[in-house]
Amino acid sequence: MIVRDLAEAERTERRVDSKGWSSVRLLLKDDGMGFSFHITTIEAAAELPMHYKHHFESVYCISGEGEIEDLATGERHQIRPGVMYALNNNDRHILRARSELKLACVFNPPVTGREVHGPDGAYPADPAADLARSA
Amino acid sequence: MIVRDLAEAERTERRVDSKGWSSVRLLLKDDGMGFSFHITTIEAAAELPMHYKHHFESVYCISGEGEIEDLATGERHQIRPGVMYALNNNDRHILRARSELKLACVFNPPVTGREVHGPDGAYPADPAADLARSA
Repeated sequence: MIVRDLAEAERTERRVDSKGWSSVRLLLKDDGMGFSFHITTIEAAAELPMHYKHHFESVYCISGEGEIEDLATGERHQIRPGVMYALNNNDRHILRARSELKLACVFNPPVTGREVHGPDGAYPADPAADLARSA
Repeated sequence: MIVRDLAEAERTERRVDSKGWSSVRLLLKDDGMGFSFHITTIEAAAELPMHYKHHFESVYCISGEGEIEDLATGERHQIRPGVMYALNNNDRHILRARSELKLACVFNPPVTGREVHGPDGAYPADPAADLARSA
């Protein structure tokens, strides 16, 4: 059993900071769960174009308000507490925060913690990962 | 892209109710993410012995207070907002809620939504699932 506390983890290298957001990785690949689990904070007024080419991601809004724009369709979905979106097609999207967003994020395959964002805004593929897609 | 709202999903068969808890499955196996994602409510004063023999589960506390007892070691860990536990050894445990708990839960392999709890309190294995354990 692994037990971790966000308040402690955010004072360690589990926390990563970038422009407009920070993320605390409570579970990473090394934990062997087959997914990673992150609590991510998006700053108010941030507008983040994102494209996870090599990962599926689900995002559940714990607090805050914003919207996600699906760049394939132009559709905009409102984000508020209780709304979840899942990028099951490696969807290109823009996330906009009207107020600070607290999000619970799951990645498959799990993030290793050693990724850096490429110039395209994506995390690179983990060469060691099996992309555990369900049929 | 999949977008779902807890407030709507809990009025559908995505919500399951049992003694002392209810759970709304925002992502299930059929969504093809390789994990399932549930928002689970544990009633105040509930004491739930659990043993997921065939699934890894991570649990993040959004609100409420309680404790988890690891039945292998007897250790008790306090649950409060921001605490996450991960059952990486299919750990037998008891979850106790001092107040109502709201939990964000991830299962690997994903729950199909058709499970019923066996007499041992576990979900059965999904015969079609690949247990996507990381090395």
